[in-house]
Amino acid sequence: MIRISAADTIDVRFPTSQQLDGSDAMNPDPDYSVAYLTLSTDAGDDLVGAGFVFTIGRGNDLAAAAVQTVADLIVGESVEELLSDLGATYRRFVHDSQLRWLGPEKGVIHMAIGAVVNALWDLKAKRAGLPLWQLVSSMTPAEIVDLVDFRYLSDALTPGEALEILERAEPGRADRTAHLLAHGYPAYTTTPGWLGYSDEKMLRLAREAVADGFTQLKLKVGGNLEDDIRRLALARAELGPSIKIAVDANQRWDVPEAIAWVRELQPYDLAWIEEPTSPDDLVGHATIRKALGSTPVATGEHIANRVMFKQLLQLGAIDVMQIDAARVAGVNENIANLLLAAKFGVRVCPHAGGVGLCEAVQHLSMIDYVAVSGTTENRYLEFVDHLHEHFVDPVRIVDGHYVAPTAPGAGTEMTADSLVHYRHDGRYGHGGD
Amino acid sequence: MIRISAADTIDVRFPTSQQLDGSDAMNPDPDYSVAYLTLSTDAGDDLVGAGFVFTIGRGNDLAAAAVQTVADLIVGESVEELLSDLGATYRRFVHDSQLRWLGPEKGVIHMAIGAVVNALWDLKAKRAGLPLWQLVSSMTPAEIVDLVDFRYLSDALTPGEALEILERAEPGRADRTAHLLAHGYPAYTTTPGWLGYSDEKMLRLAREAVADGFTQLKLKVGGNLEDDIRRLALARAELGPSIKIAVDANQRWDVPEAIAWVRELQPYDLAWIEEPTSPDDLVGHATIRKALGSTPVATGEHIANRVMFKQLLQLGAIDVMQIDAARVAGVNENIANLLLAAKFGVRVCPHAGGVGLCEAVQHLSMIDYVAVSGTTENRYLEFVDHLHEHFVDPVRIVDGHYVAPTAPGAGTEMTADSLVHYRHDGRYGHGGD
Repeated sequence: MIRISAADTIDVRFPTSQQLDGSDAMNPDPDYSVAYLTLSTDAGDDLVGAGFVFTIGRGNDLAAAAVQTVADLIVGESVEELLSDLGATYRRFVHDSQLRWLGPEKGVIHMAIGAVVNALWDLKAKRAGLPLWQLVSSMTPAEIVDLVDFRYLSDALTPGEALEILERAEPGRADRTAHLLAHGYPAYTTTPGWLGYSDEKMLRLAREAVADGFTQLKLKVGGNLEDDIRRLALARAELGPSIKIAVDANQRWDVPEAIAWVRELQPYDLAWIEEPTSPDDLVGHATIRKALGSTPVATGEHIANRVMFKQLLQLGAIDVMQIDAARVAGVNENIANLLLAAKFGVRVCPHAGGVGLCEAVQHLSMIDYVAVSGTTENRYLEFVDHLHEHFVDPVRIVDGHYVAPTAPGAGTEMTADSLVHYRHDGRYGHGGD
Repeated sequence: MIRISAADTIDVRFPTSQQLDGSDAMNPDPDYSVAYLTLSTDAGDDLVGAGFVFTIGRGNDLAAAAVQTVADLIVGESVEELLSDLGATYRRFVHDSQLRWLGPEKGVIHMAIGAVVNALWDLKAKRAGLPLWQLVSSMTPAEIVDLVDFRYLSDALTPGEALEILERAEPGRADRTAHLLAHGYPAYTTTPGWLGYSDEKMLRLAREAVADGFTQLKLKVGGNLEDDIRRLALARAELGPSIKIAVDANQRWDVPEAIAWVRELQPYDLAWIEEPTSPDDLVGHATIRKALGSTPVATGEHIANRVMFKQLLQLGAIDVMQIDAARVAGVNENIANLLLAAKFGVRVCPHAGGVGLCEAVQHLSMIDYVAVSGTTENRYLEFVDHLHEHFVDPVRIVDGHYVAPTAPGAGTEMTADSLVHYRHDGRYGHGGD
């Protein structure tokens, strides 16, 4: 029997605050970091499962300790048993009653479960010789339904309804897979829009983005209203009416302030307003969306779990669901989120950037297209052009589209060099017996 | 200048799972634990500030590491500066952008901030020679308003409205303080109701509770419907119609299941249904409350922060707000919660039990009575009779009432013997320079 022989979590930090890459109204000086997990086996084939929690610096050691705590639960266990029923494996982590108290289903412990779940998916995909998106897209609708934890969802989505959604998409899977392999998945870019950039740098990067084939880009807002208006006016004048411009406030406002501020920006034709207020304020998002009328409301990168997404949909609070690969409890919970979005007819435009979030979340959008919603209409995957070189299989963008990855795995494995070079102080973990 | 000279966090665990004390439908075998913080100063007066995160076992080491991370931020700093503006001190922790990413404002990092904030309040109260409830109740309304973080609250509660609430209560403060000192604060007991107890043990403890002066008790439900009906019928027959019986499902159900299950229990006249579903499911609580009609809905012990409480109130989802001393970011955020409850006219019946939760939360109910809502009408503080002996100033119950504590501090300090005896493996922390 092949076993998980070791789980090693490393605290990896990049000094991004020095360049103001990633600067926004709430996060002036992020140091992009990952609590990075490697699951090894005694199969003798050198395949490892990689997963991570993404943070922005301080506290990354806490995330690493939490990942190690969860991963330790499976060291020594049968790889076959863990991977053959990843629905059960995931639910076992989330339902551990003592660990659950630390959330429940939110924050450090929940993200840590996500890292372990994603590492198991990475291992499963590598062992199957498939990229994650193709692995999941080759499962039957019933097998996919079984990945989900329907606890707390049944008033909005039942297993039967999920099965119907997946069965409806089944006939077109082969065509859409071929389309993805030929054309990729549409992307938008946030690279030009960081708050710490000068107008000149922003405009130069925006021009370059359009030249590179992007049809939507995103600017950070919420620091200072006059600056926001000036930057938006400059960008709109430069790009013309056909390029979409989304704006992102990173939770900066209270509800009344969000409504008043965004009204001042609406003349520049916003593709969406992202994170106008606290991610916990579901009712607030509904109020803002109603008040703003035509401007779509987007959130999700800090939405803690599927129960919160469910309510955003029930309340009619969002037009765009922005799933994140490393915030919830991994691939399994994000499949629940995709199914919820499909049920409510809301488009999914994932959050990415950070460290490895592009590499990880592209698989989820492709699963959504092939096996769930069956469409890319008005959907865009976020792209930010930094730190990709630290991954074994970095994302590739061609003509404003993510090229569908073909390498086996979930895209989450980092290069050995990067792990050595950017390892922070602490190290957690130990081998199995 | 007096400084914080050291912050030491200890992982303390009690093997409560051996007795099934604390067993419920979601938590079959809790080992009640605290990540316990001591803040020392160089004042030479032996006064320490104590605070803690409460957990139920596994992962308590993660809570301890998080507490230490937050506490390390203030080692070496001026005690006077930290304590003279505890509003600013608290907001500094919550607004740290890098640590915030780990929540935001939820889970391990948020509870850790709560432990540090509560330890600072304990130190401040000891230095003032007052119990915490009297210290806060002696502050001016404007000073109390300044303790709150109004971010994300202004659509429901403005600083001006908070000031009005506090000013309205100000004239009666002296009378209510005298009343508390003479009569205490009404309590209810959960001691008889754990799911792991036999019918005989439950009934014996219920009889004893009534003999001890309690007029409300609480039973755990949600494991098995037939068992719930039998236990409730037995309890109601034993206690008669005048004793209030609340029931607590500890998040066991989905929304439709909660409605169906509680309808079967309604004939036994429920004082409230507590935690019928996920604490994150604000919309679900509103749906359940509407469907159940006359049975009050209660939740709060796992509500992550004031933004979530705000929405429960905006949605009309609860009749009873159950604040917890160690779930949110400490005394400051709970004062926001008390003000929100007062604004919306909802009664506050805190969650307690665990380790030290009774000792800590009694102060908040007394602050509510003296300085905020000005009433104890239909309000009860939870009481569970275990583990009090580990605290320097354990709660005292007389005739079904919490005796108002008069010892200086926040009630959070544990005995040196208990800390030595129940210390778990790990130890975090180090002195300042």
